[in-house]
Amino acid sequence: MPNQTINIVKIGGNIIDNETALELFLTDFSQLAGLKILIHGGGKIATTLAEKMGIETIMVDGRRITDSVTIDLVTMVYGGLINKKLVAKLQAKQCNAIGLTGADAATVLAQKRPVTNIDYGFVGDVVAVNHQIISKLLEAGLTPIFAPLTADNHGQILNTNADTMAKEIAVNLAKNYSVNLIYCFEKNGVLKDIENDGSVIEKLQLAEYQSKKSTGTINKGMIPKLDNAFAAKQLGVNNVIICHAKNLNKIGTKNQIGTEIII
Amino acid sequence: MPNQTINIVKIGGNIIDNETALELFLTDFSQLAGLKILIHGGGKIATTLAEKMGIETIMVDGRRITDSVTIDLVTMVYGGLINKKLVAKLQAKQCNAIGLTGADAATVLAQKRPVTNIDYGFVGDVVAVNHQIISKLLEAGLTPIFAPLTADNHGQILNTNADTMAKEIAVNLAKNYSVNLIYCFEKNGVLKDIENDGSVIEKLQLAEYQSKKSTGTINKGMIPKLDNAFAAKQLGVNNVIICHAKNLNKIGTKNQIGTEIII
Repeated sequence: MPNQTINIVKIGGNIIDNETALELFLTDFSQLAGLKILIHGGGKIATTLAEKMGIETIMVDGRRITDSVTIDLVTMVYGGLINKKLVAKLQAKQCNAIGLTGADAATVLAQKRPVTNIDYGFVGDVVAVNHQIISKLLEAGLTPIFAPLTADNHGQILNTNADTMAKEIAVNLAKNYSVNLIYCFEKNGVLKDIENDGSVIEKLQLAEYQSKKSTGTINKGMIPKLDNAFAAKQLGVNNVIICHAKNLNKIGTKNQIGTEIII
Repeated sequence: MPNQTINIVKIGGNIIDNETALELFLTDFSQLAGLKILIHGGGKIATTLAEKMGIETIMVDGRRITDSVTIDLVTMVYGGLINKKLVAKLQAKQCNAIGLTGADAATVLAQKRPVTNIDYGFVGDVVAVNHQIISKLLEAGLTPIFAPLTADNHGQILNTNADTMAKEIAVNLAKNYSVNLIYCFEKNGVLKDIENDGSVIEKLQLAEYQSKKSTGTINKGMIPKLDNAFAAKQLGVNNVIICHAKNLNKIGTKNQIGTEIII
């Protein structure tokens, strides 16, 4: 019997910050047939709130340095405000959503990133994904909505990159499902020309990516996402696609707009 | 076959605000044998944070008036910060906790309280508890940890009294389980003399409660909790007990300290 298909969708902060775009996206997501999981990023709300509360935001290589005040802040914003709003909105669209962090049901175990020349603070690198319990939730008819938070096995909550979390969940579920991993963001895909949203690379091969990376012709901000995308594909995820959130409902149809990852 | 027993424990904000007391409570809770559910209150963190952010807190009859800024605040604090910290701490104590609001998995549906002479704002009165999905989570080996938040079926998150939420969940689970509903707070139980924590009323009968209520010899702050406790008992919950959080591990033993509700 072929494995059941699951769509694992990651949505970035830029869509979360835009109420109209978010509403459209959630309608499309709720209408995806079959099993599905959503992993959401953080958006600007945490930064805005940090400013209001006089907490300084420090970013290194696109990652927030997470001190003890900041981990509380992102636990509130990602795990509470954003996650629960998404869940309530999806429930209203007849999608039986359940909001989770990696701590919940021990779905995603992490460890605090070791301090090297940079101390990222309370940032977690994924150690294990409990795909059995995620499968049980899916079999109960639920749609898990993950906030980009995990916990270590000492009860410490950790801030975790949403792209990486999506990859880790997808790779582990690929043991039992046919997985489509879809990274949704605010561009049409990986672009030949960053200024032209029509210049989507329909299929991006690993060799081409490596060459573009070495020659610097790929947008630097795309590298962590693409590294995750290629790793997912190499580790058994069936289809990995990068697309605009507004095009989620076109994926898998003849009108698909986005970049497919090929190894 | 007799129904399986489940302990449904409500913990108040005063314990959440006290790190040492909370740690002890969570150890005791994690060691309760068999099925269990925790419902937590809010504590002072929301009020402290509201002050930091310049949000005015308005209380009427012990209930927070919840405007649109405040519902975001409590969604962050109750659904994010407190709920996820409790989950991570319980996971570290080998309790397979899963944090929920009523919105998650549509466990507790509510409606915005109608405006009468007071407009409570985004406050939810429970309409229905989906005990089937809660049972599925329990059968999957999970321990649900509820934040005092619900949602209506239009996707609006609502602030909901934790004592009431505990009662509603207990009453609905009593259809399929033998339910112990335990209200934990910072007193030894219902006291004959508010100044003397040794003066616990071991069994409080409905007639006695009604008489004490009418003569004003019961602490006013206890009335909503006791109204919920008696309603739970009248609606089929097997055992309803009010006790100090530190005495949770004594409930059901010969050393029990607390007030048992009798009808």
